Amino acid sequence: MAARTLTGKEIAEHNTRESCWIIVHGKVYDVTEFLPEHPGGSKIILKYAGKDATAEYDPIHPPNAITDNLPPEKHLGSVDLSTVQKVEVEISDEDKARQLRVSQRPPLSEILNLHDFEAIARQVMTEKAWAYYSSAADDEITIRENHAAYHRIWFRPRILRNVTNVDWSTRILGQPSKLPIYITATALGKLGHPDGELNLTRAAGKHGVIQMIPTLASCSFDELVDAAVPGQSQFLQLYVNSDRAITQKFVQHAEKRGIKGLFITVDAPQLGRREKDMRMKFEAEDPAEVTDNKVADRVDRSQGAARAISSFIDTGLDWEDIPWFKSITKMPIILKGVQCWEDALLAYDAGLAGVVLSNHGGRQLEFSRSGIETLVEVVANLKEKRGLTFPNEKFQLFVDGGVRRATDVLKAIALGATAVGVGRPFLYAFSAYGQDGVERALQIFNDEFEMNMRLLGARTISEIVPEMVDASSIHQHIVSVPTDRLYDSNYESMQSARLREIKSKM
Amino acid sequence: MAARTLTGKEIAEHNTRESCWIIVHGKVYDVTEFLPEHPGGSKIILKYAGKDATAEYDPIHPPNAITDNLPPEKHLGSVDLSTVQKVEVEISDEDKARQLRVSQRPPLSEILNLHDFEAIARQVMTEKAWAYYSSAADDEITIRENHAAYHRIWFRPRILRNVTNVDWSTRILGQPSKLPIYITATALGKLGHPDGELNLTRAAGKHGVIQMIPTLASCSFDELVDAAVPGQSQFLQLYVNSDRAITQKFVQHAEKRGIKGLFITVDAPQLGRREKDMRMKFEAEDPAEVTDNKVADRVDRSQGAARAISSFIDTGLDWEDIPWFKSITKMPIILKGVQCWEDALLAYDAGLAGVVLSNHGGRQLEFSRSGIETLVEVVANLKEKRGLTFPNEKFQLFVDGGVRRATDVLKAIALGATAVGVGRPFLYAFSAYGQDGVERALQIFNDEFEMNMRLLGARTISEIVPEMVDASSIHQHIVSVPTDRLYDSNYESMQSARLREIKSKM
Amino acid sequence: MAARTLTGKEIAEHNTRESCWIIVHGKVYDVTEFLPEHPGGSKIILKYAGKDATAEYDPIHPPNAITDNLPPEKHLGSVDLSTVQKVEVEISDEDKARQLRVSQRPPLSEILNLHDFEAIARQVMTEKAWAYYSSAADDEITIRENHAAYHRIWFRPRILRNVTNVDWSTRILGQPSKLPIYITATALGKLGHPDGELNLTRAAGKHGVIQMIPTLASCSFDELVDAAVPGQSQFLQLYVNSDRAITQKFVQHAEKRGIKGLFITVDAPQLGRREKDMRMKFEAEDPAEVTDNKVADRVDRSQGAARAISSFIDTGLDWEDIPWFKSITKMPIILKGVQCWEDALLAYDAGLAGVVLSNHGGRQLEFSRSGIETLVEVVANLKEKRGLTFPNEKFQLFVDGGVRRATDVLKAIALGATAVGVGRPFLYAFSAYGQDGVERALQIFNDEFEMNMRLLGARTISEIVPEMVDASSIHQHIVSVPTDRLYDSNYESMQSARLREIKSKM
Amino acid sequence: MAARTLTGKEIAEHNTRESCWIIVHGKVYDVTEFLPEHPGGSKIILKYAGKDATAEYDPIHPPNAITDNLPPEKHLGSVDLSTVQKVEVEISDEDKARQLRVSQRPPLSEILNLHDFEAIARQVMTEKAWAYYSSAADDEITIRENHAAYHRIWFRPRILRNVTNVDWSTRILGQPSKLPIYITATALGKLGHPDGELNLTRAAGKHGVIQMIPTLASCSFDELVDAAVPGQSQFLQLYVNSDRAITQKFVQHAEKRGIKGLFITVDAPQLGRREKDMRMKFEAEDPAEVTDNKVADRVDRSQGAARAISSFIDTGLDWEDIPWFKSITKMPIILKGVQCWEDALLAYDAGLAGVVLSNHGGRQLEFSRSGIETLVEVVANLKEKRGLTFPNEKFQLFVDGGVRRATDVLKAIALGATAVGVGRPFLYAFSAYGQDGVERALQIFNDEFEMNMRLLGARTISEIVPEMVDASSIHQHIVSVPTDRLYDSNYESMQSARLREIKSKM
Repeated sequence: MAARTLTGKEIAEHNTRESCWIIVHGKVYDVTEFLPEHPGGSKIILKYAGKDATAEYDPIHPPNAITDNLPPEKHLGSVDLSTVQKVEVEISDEDKARQLRVSQRPPLSEILNLHDFEAIARQVMTEKAWAYYSSAADDEITIRENHAAYHRIWFRPRILRNVTNVDWSTRILGQPSKLPIYITATALGKLGHPDGELNLTRAAGKHGVIQMIPTLASCSFDELVDAAVPGQSQFLQLYVNSDRAITQKFVQHAEKRGIKGLFITVDAPQLGRREKDMRMKFEAEDPAEVTDNKVADRVDRSQGAARAISSFIDTGLDWEDIPWFKSITKMPIILKGVQCWEDALLAYDAGLAGVVLSNHGGRQLEFSRSGIETLVEVVANLKEKRGLTFPNEKFQLFVDGGVRRATDVLKAIALGATAVGVGRPFLYAFSAYGQDGVERALQIFNDEFEMNMRLLGARTISEIVPEMVDASSIHQHIVSVPTDRLYDSNYESMQSARLREIKSKM
Repeated sequence: MAARTLTGKEIAEHNTRESCWIIVHGKVYDVTEFLPEHPGGSKIILKYAGKDATAEYDPIHPPNAITDNLPPEKHLGSVDLSTVQKVEVEISDEDKARQLRVSQRPPLSEILNLHDFEAIARQVMTEKAWAYYSSAADDEITIRENHAAYHRIWFRPRILRNVTNVDWSTRILGQPSKLPIYITATALGKLGHPDGELNLTRAAGKHGVIQMIPTLASCSFDELVDAAVPGQSQFLQLYVNSDRAITQKFVQHAEKRGIKGLFITVDAPQLGRREKDMRMKFEAEDPAEVTDNKVADRVDRSQGAARAISSFIDTGLDWEDIPWFKSITKMPIILKGVQCWEDALLAYDAGLAGVVLSNHGGRQLEFSRSGIETLVEVVANLKEKRGLTFPNEKFQLFVDGGVRRATDVLKAIALGATAVGVGRPFLYAFSAYGQDGVERALQIFNDEFEMNMRLLGARTISEIVPEMVDASSIHQHIVSVPTDRLYDSNYESMQSARLREIKSKM
Repeated sequence: MAARTLTGKEIAEHNTRESCWIIVHGKVYDVTEFLPEHPGGSKIILKYAGKDATAEYDPIHPPNAITDNLPPEKHLGSVDLSTVQKVEVEISDEDKARQLRVSQRPPLSEILNLHDFEAIARQVMTEKAWAYYSSAADDEITIRENHAAYHRIWFRPRILRNVTNVDWSTRILGQPSKLPIYITATALGKLGHPDGELNLTRAAGKHGVIQMIPTLASCSFDELVDAAVPGQSQFLQLYVNSDRAITQKFVQHAEKRGIKGLFITVDAPQLGRREKDMRMKFEAEDPAEVTDNKVADRVDRSQGAARAISSFIDTGLDWEDIPWFKSITKMPIILKGVQCWEDALLAYDAGLAGVVLSNHGGRQLEFSRSGIETLVEVVANLKEKRGLTFPNEKFQLFVDGGVRRATDVLKAIALGATAVGVGRPFLYAFSAYGQDGVERALQIFNDEFEMNMRLLGARTISEIVPEMVDASSIHQHIVSVPTDRLYDSNYESMQSARLREIKSKM
Repeated sequence: MAARTLTGKEIAEHNTRESCWIIVHGKVYDVTEFLPEHPGGSKIILKYAGKDATAEYDPIHPPNAITDNLPPEKHLGSVDLSTVQKVEVEISDEDKARQLRVSQRPPLSEILNLHDFEAIARQVMTEKAWAYYSSAADDEITIRENHAAYHRIWFRPRILRNVTNVDWSTRILGQPSKLPIYITATALGKLGHPDGELNLTRAAGKHGVIQMIPTLASCSFDELVDAAVPGQSQFLQLYVNSDRAITQKFVQHAEKRGIKGLFITVDAPQLGRREKDMRMKFEAEDPAEVTDNKVADRVDRSQGAARAISSFIDTGLDWEDIPWFKSITKMPIILKGVQCWEDALLAYDAGLAGVVLSNHGGRQLEFSRSGIETLVEVVANLKEKRGLTFPNEKFQLFVDGGVRRATDVLKAIALGATAVGVGRPFLYAFSAYGQDGVERALQIFNDEFEMNMRLLGARTISEIVPEMVDASSIHQHIVSVPTDRLYDSNYESMQSARLREIKSKM
């Protein structure tokens, strides 16, 4: 299509539901027909009808979202930005309050653990970003189980070992890592911070850890690779496109750019329904649409941000595609999202380099077990059926989901994992403090590792052995018998001794 | 009795406790002697003494309740309604507030899951209706266990299967169903919505699912059959009458009308005490009765609405009656309310078509186990003792109780159920939104099935196999050791990092 | 000692800490030296120094407490009551508020279950009485476990049995009982109601159940026997006196008066510390004593009401005493408070008639297991070691503690108990409503039994068999891993759909 | 260094960040360079710049902290205190409120259990002291598990034993003890009370129990030994110094002074991060330091009080050091902080006198198991592998952590422990009431032992046998499946019967 150049005035006339043009990154698009399909609702687009929507567009969409979703004939051409009237950004009261909270963040030195980032991020992020990052599938039981599962594993530490020098560096898929942790792939980093995933790349480079670049990053793949320092390893997380040519091109480009491992996501043929995220959408609705239940029903908003960015994912991906992947790249290939030993065994037999035992941070299938629980059965069965022991350099096991402390990681290592993926905590770290936050998070991990390896009696990663944990309760999925409210309401709690003054007042 | 025609004026004179006549559907009844026996209390009847009580009567009673319960000599005849003074319906403040809430219901598009219907229904239903629908036996532990039991079962999903096309339709007792779900029988639909069970019939017809018509429907049986569209299958739930002739007539009429399966309720020889429902009664009491403990005691109100509608149920029903049922109908016969493998085996050996593993929604025997838990032992024992595998076309297993998500249903299917009965969620759906609500509920199920089958790696119902779930904790009925309140009250919780402003204020 | 007759005036002069006389039931006592030892504190006695203390004395003390505790020389003689000035009973604000609450009790017909009695009793009893009845050992974990343990047992009900006629009467130690329940022994009934244990005797007589008369009743033994109707059976609970002659006389008197079973308490060589009860004491302290920590310490108030009434109990009671008991009475002898199978076996081998598996309502040894849990191991071991099956007429097993519903009793019967003792619920019933309350409680049990036996598919007590319960979780004493407060505080709960109005306000 | 004598005036000139001198115990120190390293922050030191800091210094630091941490050249000499201007101690509002609370403490007679001390201490201690004593590792799950683990153990008491005389005295490492409890080592006693650990020594002497003197006491070792009465046994807890000469001198001095047992701490090569304690530090910061995240980051405050006092501890301590310890002392040597049977076995094979199964009060490695749980596996494995039975005089097992009641101790004894260490409860006792508090705590233990041994049916410590407890649930580390908030919020709790008045208002 010939690149036409339009003027702001011309565009400004298309500012109605009947004819709606918008500008994004200096390009003009006719989105009239797209309006009712926009997962975020039409209202938010109409606000920018005839105007420059770039500032609103950027944090929510991957770079190519608009070009990929609109047919070529709706790409109207370029615009001379000097002719475009600036959009007056009106700052809402809610946003002002949020900005105030941003200015009130405590200094990083007061951030003592990874939970603290989340506590601050929750207050300084936009509601939309918080909903997208924090939400998970259905009743969000799985996301919490991911964390809770670690609490069913307890340590059996050893004493009287010279732990003056402890070293928690390791190798992941052959690459050196200062921590047995990698930064796993998560989408839409700019929702939390204008630099998006670059915060992760830069902090990873400084601290010697590996970042897994997400297919659905807010920053472009090359931006993130360019930001790496010499010697910094990066992995790639891959959503496989229905159009395999696109995937092949992307994978081979990645390999050429030096990516050290290819993690193919296999637990998300369809992106999950995340109801917190979905509820957020209704805020941005055109009242004209929502008043009539029938009309509103016609538009399926059921997958919110997820749908906007994931429609290309191939639901037909199959074990039979594995040889093809092996044929197009020499990178080690790992399946991300394996959830039972049978599939781990298939991956091993298919000659892959490893698997990530993961339920996608609890965002996909509700009631899928935690990675750490699956790890226990995978290790047992691959030993029994193929004689493997773990950690194993030829076939590496990773887990992700629910990690908040070095102790969590140590448990996974003891049970056979090579390394552990950490996602949300780093998102919250940069959402609250940018790159500094991610660095502080890594430093906290380092501090916790130093101490806890000493206390565990392990001087190196290889000294962290299965006997150091008791995971015998890991498969227990208990729900207490529902409470007997009448009995409980009659029971009067014990009271402690009390100060006299307080007593006399009561 | 000769049909006499009375005038409104004549009737209006019988407006006291000493002589109390009322009009229902154009007929006149002398209820003077019935007053102290009315399960809903005499006060509510006296309010309509000498007047037309139809509007009050309809939602609470099955069509024939009054004719069945009053001796023929109390049926006084017809009334020329034009001679009857309209009852001024006084709308209470409480009812006005409720009507306001009705007008504030969110659009259906904001209803994201089945819990949402309940959250809205609870606010827009009358207290009486809510108490009847939501109440259960004793301390209501069983009703909650029904839901909680599903949380003790976790998935073992499979990956890398081509899940582009997934199909969750199935056959139930040989009838096609678009979902592995049927709408189970529940009583008194008009309490929740003026169209009562018709909401279910119509939505079921549109969505290709099967409705089980209850014996105690607010709508008449024929109304519900007449409302079915061509090709729409319906089942019948049967409370067996002490007078078997009545039962035989009803069953044979149902068969003639095309009913495809007969579900005989076997867990309710006596309807349960449901205390929430019972407490509701006292609101409608005549103060003259309640002031004296002794007097109030004379009237057994202990079963509220349940007693009003269930006195005919035969407490003597026995295994020896089964051959008789088989002799009067060719419909497949299923026992509804089986609660241990021993009875499932007896049912199989008796040549029945299946069993519903159910504890009647927690409304009958407190501490009876959930259907999903019973399913596990039934499948194991019928395999061991009769070599059966499930799902099994010849002897079908159903479960009901506690289902809120497609994942619940998938667990039951994986463990061997043919289909799952869902009751209260549909009641709440139509109580809040009528037929549209039921349709939305079915659509939500469809959406959840599509996604979750993909995520589970099952393309058809038959691919949902036992290995896809871990139900090893299902029989665990744990109650935590009671809390140590003194210790807990001394323990000071951890605090997160806080914004500075908040900090300085504390 | 010669019975001297004193005048009110004479007595009134001894109204100081230095010389303190009081009148109880027309007798005069010099309690000067007893003041610092009084478990209830000296202040409460000093309030009646020189006056008639009968009204205050009666509800808290067994009839003979004062005569038994004061040496004979302090029994000064009788008083001509006409010469005694009436004590102006000053009604405190707190007591007025309580009396108001008494007048607000709901009618008995609104009491739907045994919990309701407790809810009302808690509000209408004096704080002192509530503390004494409701308190238990240490952290009161055991008392709650007694109830919770029943929740770990679930039913396996049977269907399609003709349950038109169900009969839950039974025989206990050969005596007929309309319910498989007996009223167990509890002390100080007059704390809750002026008629004390007579409420129980009378209600038991009307409803055909057996009352176990407590050694520490507020009413005298003969009063309670006299109140029985012809054919009414009674048992006796025995605290063994260090002076065996007293015990022998008491036991033989009981046998002569027709008592049908002798329950020797074996779990209370020393009465428990019950801290709620102990805290209550400090209210009644003389300020002069409490200001100085050292002084207050000298008096051991540690057992409150318990100590006042229990100092005679023999800590030396031994298995070797059993033959002596058998020699002094022909009544069946049962040990009350057996807590492991080893002691049940010893009791059987000693030729006793049975045991009560009990931890004294959680009031003695904290962390002793519930009777229902102990029952499971006793039945298993007596079967294995002596070939016994239960229920067994020759050696009967009873349990008590934590029972609130007929379902609890049914579980105990299924597991082998002959009958179940119920204590506190009846105390609360008469504390709230006197004899009528106890009758209502028994009626509720009858209603629940009728329904639940039908629903369980058992027509007689003998049809309630072990297969009808799943008690496989009974020995699980679980405490959840302590909560991760930082994680939990960051987690944001799911929200239901909301009405529009509510939404706009938030 | 020659002891120079300075004047107050001279010192007062060094009152700035650039040159900061302080006086402690009549000695002058130049702390200018130490300012940024002070774990408590520089602000608190600057407050005393040029002044006498003794009163502030004493409760927080062990006697030699300043001399040990400052290089000799910063020890400037002595001061003539008469020339020093008194520091006006300004009492903050918070401290005034605290002093008021101190005056409101209830009399000791109202302290009924060990929890009560904690409830009072929490209100009368400084926040700093409370944070130091009560804090624990990471999310403080382990500290609470230490207590909770006891709740998974239940009693199997025996009856009908003559328990008139019960005796709970025992021998610990050959020394007589009136209780099977010793006072374990805890640091910084003066934080809670000006007499510090002397409170413990004196109370221990009066009650015949053994105190373990901590290396990090606020009082000096000799002070504590001097305070012992004739015949009073004491143990020593040892943190091993990197400079073994110091350790040797200390150990041999201790032996000479009559110490009866040497407990080498092996679970703390590095002192734990305790976040509650760490948060406390920021209160004492110089605002100039905290405003800039980067600057504040340079100073590692991560170990608060712990770091100040522990930098000398040898991280290189090893099994190979054990023979050396045996060569320098004849005292029985016990390892404190063993956490699995393998290390207990190594200790036994190394010829040591015993081990303390402990996780350092939950202050070191989060998710290390409780001592009582470890005890179960140690006893089982040492029996299996070395044929040992416990309690065993040759190799004694101790546990500490979480004990609040005599029942806790009885459980440990039954499972094989010789005695149990109790720490925090005694700290809270003296923080609230000084020596009297500790004595009261010991008296409460005595009262509880007398009663509970009677109720358990054990007359001596040796009669407390393994069969008296059921510890079968001890290894269960359960976390409930996360709650289903939508379901739970829809569920409407049962309501009890209510008083009429209350009802009409609602």
